[in-house]
Amino acid sequence: MEITITPVLLVGFFAGAITTISAIPQLYKSIKTKETKDLSLGMIILLLFGVTAWFVYGVLDKDWALIIANIIVIIVWGIILGYKLKYK
Amino acid sequence: MEITITPVLLVGFFAGAITTISAIPQLYKSIKTKETKDLSLGMIILLLFGVTAWFVYGVLDKDWALIIANIIVIIVWGIILGYKLKYK
Repeated sequence: MEITITPVLLVGFFAGAITTISAIPQLYKSIKTKETKDLSLGMIILLLFGVTAWFVYGVLDKDWALIIANIIVIIVWGIILGYKLKYK
Repeated sequence: MEITITPVLLVGFFAGAITTISAIPQLYKSIKTKETKDLSLGMIILLLFGVTAWFVYGVLDKDWALIIANIIVIIVWGIILGYKLKYK
């Protein structure tokens, strides 16, 4: 399966990079403070469910920007979920 | 501009709906408790920047699932940002 890099796809990769990076400050804050009570557990679970669906959409649509971005988002928010469950 | 509904696009709309809905429990929690200190300001700002880029990607790619989903996400997380700034 080949990836053809187009300008539009580059915007998608940029968007995916920023969305993915956005989870990092939250992960850092949760790890540092071990305080997660203001984070909504429902939000985290639905978000993980939603980005998994976006990942499936990316696979069906052969959209590499969506596939790669959502895999990383799932991993980072998955770790935050672990902190939320450990330090509620 | 017409929308042709395909099964793949339906998965995209489903993903968009779940991702969008995921912000609602967070908005509810922030409004109810007026406590937002565990939420990372950097995460919220980067997330809003990122979903705006996804919106642009959706427009360039004429991808209605991305366009509609990201407009709603921008609005809901925008309100949460307001609460974060008001009740830090």
